[in-house]
Amino acid sequence: MAKPEATLLDPSRFAFVHDITTRFADLDPNGHINNVAMAAVFEDGRVRFIQGAGFREALGALRFMVVSVGIDYLAQAHFPGPLTCHTAALSVGTSSWTIQQLVLQSGAPVATARTTVVCTDGLRPVALPDPLRTLLEPWLMK
Amino acid sequence: MAKPEATLLDPSRFAFVHDITTRFADLDPNGHINNVAMAAVFEDGRVRFIQGAGFREALGALRFMVVSVGIDYLAQAHFPGPLTCHTAALSVGTSSWTIQQLVLQSGAPVATARTTVVCTDGLRPVALPDPLRTLLEPWLMK
Amino acid sequence: MAKPEATLLDPSRFAFVHDITTRFADLDPNGHINNVAMAAVFEDGRVRFIQGAGFREALGALRFMVVSVGIDYLAQAHFPGPLTCHTAALSVGTSSWTIQQLVLQSGAPVATARTTVVCTDGLRPVALPDPLRTLLEPWLMK
Amino acid sequence: MAKPEATLLDPSRFAFVHDITTRFADLDPNGHINNVAMAAVFEDGRVRFIQGAGFREALGALRFMVVSVGIDYLAQAHFPGPLTCHTAALSVGTSSWTIQQLVLQSGAPVATARTTVVCTDGLRPVALPDPLRTLLEPWLMK
Repeated sequence: MAKPEATLLDPSRFAFVHDITTRFADLDPNGHINNVAMAAVFEDGRVRFIQGAGFREALGALRFMVVSVGIDYLAQAHFPGPLTCHTAALSVGTSSWTIQQLVLQSGAPVATARTTVVCTDGLRPVALPDPLRTLLEPWLMK
Repeated sequence: MAKPEATLLDPSRFAFVHDITTRFADLDPNGHINNVAMAAVFEDGRVRFIQGAGFREALGALRFMVVSVGIDYLAQAHFPGPLTCHTAALSVGTSSWTIQQLVLQSGAPVATARTTVVCTDGLRPVALPDPLRTLLEPWLMK
Repeated sequence: MAKPEATLLDPSRFAFVHDITTRFADLDPNGHINNVAMAAVFEDGRVRFIQGAGFREALGALRFMVVSVGIDYLAQAHFPGPLTCHTAALSVGTSSWTIQQLVLQSGAPVATARTTVVCTDGLRPVALPDPLRTLLEPWLMK
Repeated sequence: MAKPEATLLDPSRFAFVHDITTRFADLDPNGHINNVAMAAVFEDGRVRFIQGAGFREALGALRFMVVSVGIDYLAQAHFPGPLTCHTAALSVGTSSWTIQQLVLQSGAPVATARTTVVCTDGLRPVALPDPLRTLLEPWLMK
């Protein structure tokens, strides 16, 4: 099993949390929540984080583009219990920033994800607007 | 828009209910919950109903097979609010039975589904075992 | 197993055909192509049909809305072989029309679908424009 | 946009190739192939690679478990054209190995993925069996 740093597995460090119900369609032939279904859970967490924190409004005509997603699968997740998805900003660069996420089931970590998001004008990367930087600060990992 | 009988749109007639969170991945290019994603919601409701009501144990070595699903789409469903899925048995035949379902969002009906399930020995239909019939009775639409 | 009329299982009656590859993600815990994955196959066939036949252009500012989909599951479909999806118009009404579809794997029917599509101005049903009726004619089941 | 090493974008270095059709259900609200749908494409490529190269038989009672997947998104992918997925072994360790993949559309790279797979006895990592190492060799990136 993968071993991300222990500090990334502490739910209390993530300011944004939401619960997501598992679905029968998430199961694969092994009877576990499929890896790709878990990728959809992380995506859902990112979108809710970005909408919920008001980043979208601060973007104006700019938009975010996901350029990389890395997922570590730590343990099997099961149906029908729900998942809890924790999301935070990990670091902020000039035109991109990184989102760190942790999914738990019944209190145990099942997967982590790190996503790099670039701010673009639709064609090329542009510097993150200052109001967005200000908005991001309180959402950095504690 | 489709118009199923009004009597099928009354949530109080369904004994089994569960909530399901919508996901960003459910959205289609129109920005609405996709029709196929809604089919996954109904499937999830059926499986939870069948597991929750103890039908699976009563089947023994037999198994259920879905032979038809008909869905009426009544209104657009949206992200990120949750959906409520109501499920009941509609009718019981010799070797098959019918499940009726209703999905609401914010209290308004968005879709209904009718599913025919056949009891098989893995190869061909067999009569529904009596214990299963007894189990089904309290779950018939009120 | 469901038994749609034999006349609906004859691939030569459908003017529009396309192949679709199965995916590992389509499999469910039974190791078969999942019922919801099959719904996505039919949806894909409908969209390709509607785009390929030029209906979209004939719609102008109007749009199609799917109001009901009924699927009969005839046999298990398997990974990793491809599926062949046959699509035709079944009937044309005032403001709505019906699409009939057939999916084969290795030459054997695995599922059929019937979809009712309504022409709307975004809010309510409107009569199908005459140019669209003319376009639809050659795609009716033979 | 992410910039994986140019050497990972050369399709001729990958010994295993397959085509996969896009589906309407892969589209997200931006009208592009969704990131999670792309994850399903890579998963499909891995499974076909592992089945096609005979690794599964060489595993006997052991099994592979995916412990991490990292995807770089290089360009938007579109519906309805197909995708081509190239897959190779990148490196082989004691109990784990790494799969490198490249997806092209119309000849242009749209995404790469790196997956770490661990050989387990169902509970814990075990050394990759020698016959499997021999089987893997011809599939290493050229």
